[in-house]
Amino acid sequence: MAAPETPESNVDVLIIGAGPAGLMAACWMAHCGVKARIIDKRNAKIFCGQADGLQCRSLEIFDSLGFGDRAWKEANHMIEICMWNPGPDGVIRRSDRIPDTIVGLSRFQQIVLHQGRIERFFLDNIRKFSKDTIKVERGILPESLEIDVSKVEDNSAYPVTVKLRHLSEEEATPRQEVSGSKVGKAGDGIFRSNLIYEDDEDDLIRKSRAREGTAETVHAKYVIGCDGARSWTRRALGFELQGEATDFIWGVMDIIPITDFPDIRMRCAIHSAESGSLMVIPRENKLVRLYIQLVEVTPDASGRADRSKITPDFIFGAAQKILSPYKIDYEYCDWWTAYQIGQRVGTSFDSHSRVFLAGDAVHTHSPKAGQGMNVSMQDCYNLGWKVALVAKGIAKRSILTTYQSERRRVAQDLINFDHRFSRLFSGRPAQDVMDTEGVSMEVFKDAFLKGNLFASGLSVNYGPSTLVAKSGDAAEQGDGSTPATSDLVKDLTPEVFEKKQALATGLPVGMRFNSFKVLNQACARPWHFQERLKADGRFRVVLFAGDILDPEQKARVQKFCDALDAPESFLHAATPADAPIDSVIEVLTIHSSPRTETELLRDFPDILHPFDKHAGWDYNKVFVDGESYHEGYGEAYKNYGVDRKRGCVVAVRPDQYVGWVGELEDFDQLQKYFDGCLILRDTANNELNGQNLTIR
Amino acid sequence: MAAPETPESNVDVLIIGAGPAGLMAACWMAHCGVKARIIDKRNAKIFCGQADGLQCRSLEIFDSLGFGDRAWKEANHMIEICMWNPGPDGVIRRSDRIPDTIVGLSRFQQIVLHQGRIERFFLDNIRKFSKDTIKVERGILPESLEIDVSKVEDNSAYPVTVKLRHLSEEEATPRQEVSGSKVGKAGDGIFRSNLIYEDDEDDLIRKSRAREGTAETVHAKYVIGCDGARSWTRRALGFELQGEATDFIWGVMDIIPITDFPDIRMRCAIHSAESGSLMVIPRENKLVRLYIQLVEVTPDASGRADRSKITPDFIFGAAQKILSPYKIDYEYCDWWTAYQIGQRVGTSFDSHSRVFLAGDAVHTHSPKAGQGMNVSMQDCYNLGWKVALVAKGIAKRSILTTYQSERRRVAQDLINFDHRFSRLFSGRPAQDVMDTEGVSMEVFKDAFLKGNLFASGLSVNYGPSTLVAKSGDAAEQGDGSTPATSDLVKDLTPEVFEKKQALATGLPVGMRFNSFKVLNQACARPWHFQERLKADGRFRVVLFAGDILDPEQKARVQKFCDALDAPESFLHAATPADAPIDSVIEVLTIHSSPRTETELLRDFPDILHPFDKHAGWDYNKVFVDGESYHEGYGEAYKNYGVDRKRGCVVAVRPDQYVGWVGELEDFDQLQKYFDGCLILRDTANNELNGQNLTIR
Repeated sequence: MAAPETPESNVDVLIIGAGPAGLMAACWMAHCGVKARIIDKRNAKIFCGQADGLQCRSLEIFDSLGFGDRAWKEANHMIEICMWNPGPDGVIRRSDRIPDTIVGLSRFQQIVLHQGRIERFFLDNIRKFSKDTIKVERGILPESLEIDVSKVEDNSAYPVTVKLRHLSEEEATPRQEVSGSKVGKAGDGIFRSNLIYEDDEDDLIRKSRAREGTAETVHAKYVIGCDGARSWTRRALGFELQGEATDFIWGVMDIIPITDFPDIRMRCAIHSAESGSLMVIPRENKLVRLYIQLVEVTPDASGRADRSKITPDFIFGAAQKILSPYKIDYEYCDWWTAYQIGQRVGTSFDSHSRVFLAGDAVHTHSPKAGQGMNVSMQDCYNLGWKVALVAKGIAKRSILTTYQSERRRVAQDLINFDHRFSRLFSGRPAQDVMDTEGVSMEVFKDAFLKGNLFASGLSVNYGPSTLVAKSGDAAEQGDGSTPATSDLVKDLTPEVFEKKQALATGLPVGMRFNSFKVLNQACARPWHFQERLKADGRFRVVLFAGDILDPEQKARVQKFCDALDAPESFLHAATPADAPIDSVIEVLTIHSSPRTETELLRDFPDILHPFDKHAGWDYNKVFVDGESYHEGYGEAYKNYGVDRKRGCVVAVRPDQYVGWVGELEDFDQLQKYFDGCLILRDTANNELNGQNLTIR
Repeated sequence: MAAPETPESNVDVLIIGAGPAGLMAACWMAHCGVKARIIDKRNAKIFCGQADGLQCRSLEIFDSLGFGDRAWKEANHMIEICMWNPGPDGVIRRSDRIPDTIVGLSRFQQIVLHQGRIERFFLDNIRKFSKDTIKVERGILPESLEIDVSKVEDNSAYPVTVKLRHLSEEEATPRQEVSGSKVGKAGDGIFRSNLIYEDDEDDLIRKSRAREGTAETVHAKYVIGCDGARSWTRRALGFELQGEATDFIWGVMDIIPITDFPDIRMRCAIHSAESGSLMVIPRENKLVRLYIQLVEVTPDASGRADRSKITPDFIFGAAQKILSPYKIDYEYCDWWTAYQIGQRVGTSFDSHSRVFLAGDAVHTHSPKAGQGMNVSMQDCYNLGWKVALVAKGIAKRSILTTYQSERRRVAQDLINFDHRFSRLFSGRPAQDVMDTEGVSMEVFKDAFLKGNLFASGLSVNYGPSTLVAKSGDAAEQGDGSTPATSDLVKDLTPEVFEKKQALATGLPVGMRFNSFKVLNQACARPWHFQERLKADGRFRVVLFAGDILDPEQKARVQKFCDALDAPESFLHAATPADAPIDSVIEVLTIHSSPRTETELLRDFPDILHPFDKHAGWDYNKVFVDGESYHEGYGEAYKNYGVDRKRGCVVAVRPDQYVGWVGELEDFDQLQKYFDGCLILRDTANNELNGQNLTIR
């Protein structure tokens, strides 16, 4: 029990760990207006090294939060992968070039920017959207965590109790900074390239110097543990990481290279004949990251390598051998480390749907595929809105079971991918087709090409659940656990589902809503449709209205809209009585009639562009699949695989995943979808408040 | 004389007025590292109203400074202009749609964002690039200005003396804020839409409360007066605005409209049959600006209108009449004003090439074409780098004479444009072809289309001078004054110039360097080439190297580079002995050979990718005209009108204007171009320092 003088407080969500995963969780709370705290034991964020690759999907996510452009602007863009292999003479030569990102996959491509900047973007964003109410509290350590199991199903309870200790300055200084991570030969620090002007984060953290050494007790509705591979939260829950380490030891160095190697600004996968492999990752500010296989270091009988001889000179010497006959040197090293590849997944991601684990706390793997930060952030992009909507009383608690089902499966896939990829990359290249112990460079290239789709983060396909209306076995398509599943989904046969999915072949249920350009009907501005799917915690119904100028189709649209605007519809029933009609679920329309022959107010039912008595009609909800003056033609109907005349209806989750697809006549199914995941009011027999939809 | 106790100080550049023009000047000083101060008598920047249209060219300029993306992201994008005119029944109907920005003109299109945000972007940018050394000093009034004419040609002198007074809080509060600019019917301020979170500028201004009421004396090398239509600086110099007012009175309102008018989110030009004209400018945050002709108000005999009866209700009543039979109302008004169109140009922009005037201080006109803020900022985009480079001792003082020649001509053109455009817009629409007193809507549409090119800011074409190597009469192509002109230009016949210009038909000398996408040779990343022409005060030589894999062409390139790298070349002679070779003039290359068959280090002379002993080769200077994986094909050679095999050479000013075009063999002419505008050291007989261009 807390001592009498220990302060106690309640909070909806407590986030432990302020790396990219924890910041993503905090970001959702800020965007959804949920009371949250985020703590970290370190007293400063990192400025160099660590994760740096950002996949397409991460950039789409950043864009939904509002800072995709910042990352895109500052990062190095990786365009091409060059493969270098030994020729018949044993000397490395370029054997292949492939695009680093599969062409046409996303509006973004893979980029590289160090984690410190990403964290900065999060901090600014959290500050802005929470209006300063959520700030990272640094130098705070959790000391105990208890879940009152008797209260876990009570929506108003705070069943998780966490005791915190405010560290002293000394205690909160991370060891990584003490152990000389700087080995700049020049030593004058002039290349301190990552220290961007605004990187002083004093204004973004909550100072707690006054409370150094004191304790406090926090009662939380939900706790999210994002505290890294040695996760305190995971250990407090008694969960484990399962998996194994390999024999391969790699070094990593971030340097400004001085070299005659021609592809130093390309991403390169280099297999030398005898000296091991090397990956080149060109970065921002002239930096290049080298992943260097250390063939001369092997683990001992206990499986651990002798780290004492792994120095920057040792690692760099290995790189020089691999790159020979090309010369490489450096004066400035920003950061270095060495690691032994290990692939592990957490046994559970969820305790009583009250405490969740995310990021490195539940999956570790090799860093070379640039997945770590991405998958960690995406864990919390999946989790954050669910916790926020449940905490706000908008969504049903049962949706929380989908987190482990969806994300632990991704972690399992990641580990399988990494397992295969690491071995191919760490293996000696085959000398010829008879050399079956060596790695065939054809097989390696093929794995790289396939891996690129996985690595983009865009192949994620969530299984059936109360949030994903598709057919099939939920445990099998997930991590093995069984998420909550509504009757709608239970009753869905593969045959029926196939027919519905055929209405929008480019929008597979369970995958993220792809983006193509459409024009705003009212102002003709082109938008990537995904730009309209902001991370604000709202579900969306996307009405592909088809050819609205066709009388028959117009009648179908009118009928759908009548159902939508009826008092008992999920749209009214999910929306609090005093809130605007688009607060919980936003209805967006894309039609296929010619823009200039169509008029917003004349041709579209009011519910598609709701009226506000203070601000008039809403001009930002109806779009058209048409050619723009300056930015080409997105061909949205064609690319989404939707019939231009008849259209269809799509339900989209707050994290941009497709939840349901149906005909305009399938309103009842759509109603069931939302009834499965949201808390609907009884509006059928009540007059609606605040829903004046006619112009004065 | 200053009283004994008045503090005195020296500064390179004193900028009077911190509106967009003054901030642009300060921005150059920050980017060029020049010691500068910027003062303003107001104690806060504006938050609403005032100028809001941003042309393509302004966005290109913002991008060169580093904040084009911020404006692009926050602004409303105006895509289409709809023309509304009376039909045969006298009722307004839409008669035409045209794109708001001419297709293909620029990588940007015209957008709308209020001046307060633009100023914020400037303040952030100045802060970052000056490392906090330049901050706007508010509440400071200039009281006297003297030029010591005996010292104006002395580069080390501070010949301009300005006495300043630090105002009290009360004195510094602008009258515009006192006279209720807010007339929100709702009155609860919930629509205070323009107050973006970060718009508290406390951190960006230099507090001087302690000095309230005190005086100081500043000795400046250069003074730039950007203090508006009632410019104190202009009056101190004894210069005047010349021109006249018209009889047309217009009202302006920024409102959130509640209306059934279908094109309220389009830019509209509406001529009613009898009630006057109206322009609709859709803006950010649901706002719409209405420019409303007030036909019921006419100036008296003195040419002044009775302003007392011009109220928001009066103005809005006029708008309602013009828009009838459509209904319009509002609850929230952000700002309103009324103005009488007057077109005036300053008699002189320059006193002794020591004190300059820019912006509204030297040109006033109607706001409807969205030109004001743009032309004002562009004045200082033209002037700032010239003053900065002269103050730093890099450029010759004589280049300063080009400011008035170039920019007063633009002001004259603007006033002529505005004169014609305003009359067409304010005139009653013709009832039929016999109605010769009315304005033909065909003529109006035609003027609009032509006006769009002018309004983009991209038709500016500077006349011959020491900075622009073209043929013709300098006074005639300028404002009538005669700028400094080097022998290179004096000797240039129209016949010879025509031949040189034919080498790059898409890069007219005197116009801004157009932008097409090229790929970085070393990393394959696509760039809009203009993105590489940053506003850092550097001139650039763009070498269109042609087909570098062709031996004959390679020899031509080698010969050009040999001359470039010779000790006596302008490149070495313009660069301070201890500075990197690209400090004053940067050489950029675009070649046309296939990217994957070309290698940076193997195929291009060292001077095109200089070596730095700390950081290796420069990978950001050589580009290729090739197809990208994800962003299409820029076809740069075709679009620049350059021969793919033989290429050419182009000199570019720091403000992105083309200064010179020639063959690879025309090195001597290029040398003369730079000799005409820069201060060249005598390097011919000295060993070069700090120019180690071979790899160790």
